Amino acid sequence: MPMIFPSLTDNFEESFWKNTHSIYFKSMPLSANLLPRRENYSSHDVEGHDLFICGIILVNGRYLIMRLFTVGPVACYPEVLEAMGHQMYSHRSKEYFALHYETVRLLQDFISTKNEIFLFSSTGTGFMEASVRNCVRRKILCCINGSFGERFAEVAEANCITVVKLAPPLGNPISTADLDDLLSKNSDVEAVALTHNETSVGLINPLKDLVTVAKNHGKLVFVDAVSSMGGTEIKVDELDIDVCFSSSQKCFGVPPGLGVGSVSERAMNLSATASNKGWYFDFKLWEEDQTKGRGTPVTPAIPQIAGLNTALKMIEKKGGRKWYFDLYKERNQKIRQGIEKHGLSTFPRKGSESPTVNCINAPEGVEGGAIYEKMREKGFELAEGYGSIKKKTFRIGNMGYIEMGDIDLMLDELGKVISSL
Amino acid sequence: MPMIFPSLTDNFEESFWKNTHSIYFKSMPLSANLLPRRENYSSHDVEGHDLFICGIILVNGRYLIMRLFTVGPVACYPEVLEAMGHQMYSHRSKEYFALHYETVRLLQDFISTKNEIFLFSSTGTGFMEASVRNCVRRKILCCINGSFGERFAEVAEANCITVVKLAPPLGNPISTADLDDLLSKNSDVEAVALTHNETSVGLINPLKDLVTVAKNHGKLVFVDAVSSMGGTEIKVDELDIDVCFSSSQKCFGVPPGLGVGSVSERAMNLSATASNKGWYFDFKLWEEDQTKGRGTPVTPAIPQIAGLNTALKMIEKKGGRKWYFDLYKERNQKIRQGIEKHGLSTFPRKGSESPTVNCINAPEGVEGGAIYEKMREKGFELAEGYGSIKKKTFRIGNMGYIEMGDIDLMLDELGKVISSL
Repeated sequence: MPMIFPSLTDNFEESFWKNTHSIYFKSMPLSANLLPRRENYSSHDVEGHDLFICGIILVNGRYLIMRLFTVGPVACYPEVLEAMGHQMYSHRSKEYFALHYETVRLLQDFISTKNEIFLFSSTGTGFMEASVRNCVRRKILCCINGSFGERFAEVAEANCITVVKLAPPLGNPISTADLDDLLSKNSDVEAVALTHNETSVGLINPLKDLVTVAKNHGKLVFVDAVSSMGGTEIKVDELDIDVCFSSSQKCFGVPPGLGVGSVSERAMNLSATASNKGWYFDFKLWEEDQTKGRGTPVTPAIPQIAGLNTALKMIEKKGGRKWYFDLYKERNQKIRQGIEKHGLSTFPRKGSESPTVNCINAPEGVEGGAIYEKMREKGFELAEGYGSIKKKTFRIGNMGYIEMGDIDLMLDELGKVISSL
Repeated sequence: MPMIFPSLTDNFEESFWKNTHSIYFKSMPLSANLLPRRENYSSHDVEGHDLFICGIILVNGRYLIMRLFTVGPVACYPEVLEAMGHQMYSHRSKEYFALHYETVRLLQDFISTKNEIFLFSSTGTGFMEASVRNCVRRKILCCINGSFGERFAEVAEANCITVVKLAPPLGNPISTADLDDLLSKNSDVEAVALTHNETSVGLINPLKDLVTVAKNHGKLVFVDAVSSMGGTEIKVDELDIDVCFSSSQKCFGVPPGLGVGSVSERAMNLSATASNKGWYFDFKLWEEDQTKGRGTPVTPAIPQIAGLNTALKMIEKKGGRKWYFDLYKERNQKIRQGIEKHGLSTFPRKGSESPTVNCINAPEGVEGGAIYEKMREKGFELAEGYGSIKKKTFRIGNMGYIEMGDIDLMLDELGKVISSL
């Protein structure tokens, strides 16, 4: 059962401890300031394992401890939240520049690229719009596996670009043969847009194979890696991806408000001669400030950049990318095994299941939303279905700050909820 | 002298107190977690007034307590930083919707409007681009008092809009007669863009008079209120401003990463028929999600929205808008009197000096940057000059979290720095 507290008052700390005599205080409070500090309490108080804290949510005026299995924003690492609460400083100061260029370098290493990486004051969708406006003149091919592939097409159309769609039946990955075929029939397409991991249906595409096909046709490639970057390896330079973008609030476990992405030289050259690229997302403008040591043309989202910097350094310290990807694999395996044990199945075609978002078919006669609501009442925030399969499915995220013990607790509760419906 | 600590370690708290025997701990640490809690120390420890804490900055690997008089990002209120460090939750949850709609309502009250107010995951410049893309087809008149007026023109041109410029000599406000005249000569102009408060030269324009002229010509009016909203009253509906936008990191004292702005019905109707408005900043898309109870079309910058919500409620609690505007007036009067006492003059024409940013002429033979650097060494972060007058001036911000006592200390140090150069 989730813990419930009357209100956030001065004696919150006291009432928290009064109500939780036995607590394993290993994970993170809603706020660095909000929860009691372990060192102020005797070891006796912090023994026992009946409660894992992942976060606290204000529900009907009361604070509820909630474990997040969301699909973004996701639970953030304690170190990241600590960085988010720091006092501000000028974005034209030496201190900011040190943070900025270090974060860019850490990200370049993380996705194996020498391309410029920009830290946009926007979400990943801002980078999506940027890729279209800077690099495409007339026509793009959008690979669509769900709502976020659809979004890429909508964004292109809203910018007066003609869209050729490759949209297999929902739940199926993009086939390399289909892409090859469609590109042969549409030789005037300038770029191919791919959703690496489709958050709405919990599906991952065969990135390397698809990029290879597009590159064989000489096309630009834009990769929406919003829910994959950080959770699985992406080698940008090896694959020769022209624009590869993500958001802070997914696999890096940082709050939303920051879009990051790499831009190839080829994409940059197209930006140089684009006539309708606007100002806010102009790659050349961002390149100029970044390469001349001025950071960003607009005020950067300093807290999220500090948060991402902290997350990337934390990953480095704990064992690097491989350690992080292995952690995601291990956690997702645990989630998937639990799902199967409860007799549930996942929505995407076998073999295309996402390592970061599990989209699960609701049992016959049950709406996905009902499972979501029941789990919430128990203190677990999963995610509802999305788009056309909203009612038929629910989702369990595997992104950000999740402890193995929390997965056990969540699966245990999920079993009870399923059998009660 | 600023306090300097070796590093942020577990014994930071201990070393902090060891090094500051006499401290008036009234203002805010860099992070809620980082600094010692007053209640843990005897009243004897916290007496005395030789040090006011506004923030801590990492300088050459050491933490330096720094008082911020920046022009954005500015020092944030303790309550705001506390909110920034909260754990995340889904932006499709009831908790987020409660935060979202309350913040919109608080902002509507603050700038006296019934128009929709959007919470963009961008900076104020994103809203600038949005106003142009959604509402202007061919031609705009940009009033230019400095770098940010120039930016409005650049943004319009980057979106293929023809710009008519009204740019008086630097330091002068826009004249209503000139605007009237230029609008008479350019009847095909669709909109007038005004910078309410020009951050680069510390100048405020006569908003009401200028808007009246533009409206008499039947034009749309866009107001860049980035460094004025919050610091001085703006009555959007009374003036009939079509798009009035700002950023979180200025007068509200919240970290950067959030653009806020109101959009009139007339502007919204123009958006409905715009053909090249893009997706990310499409007013109609934002309106649809907001009015249908879905919040935002892209993931919102939850920490900054929580921070702004906290700031607006804090203002309400302390005495409302009037109290806040009076505070700005009082603080700026103190800063201006101190400047004059030191024999310094401000850059803009008499009567047009900004209430939020003081742009000060450097003494004969001294570069503004030298004063900025010297003040930094003493623990005060002012701002350098900007644009074409970068070398001739320096700036003292009056935005965000500044205590009266800190102004005294800053002015005192400024006097010493000036006489030493």
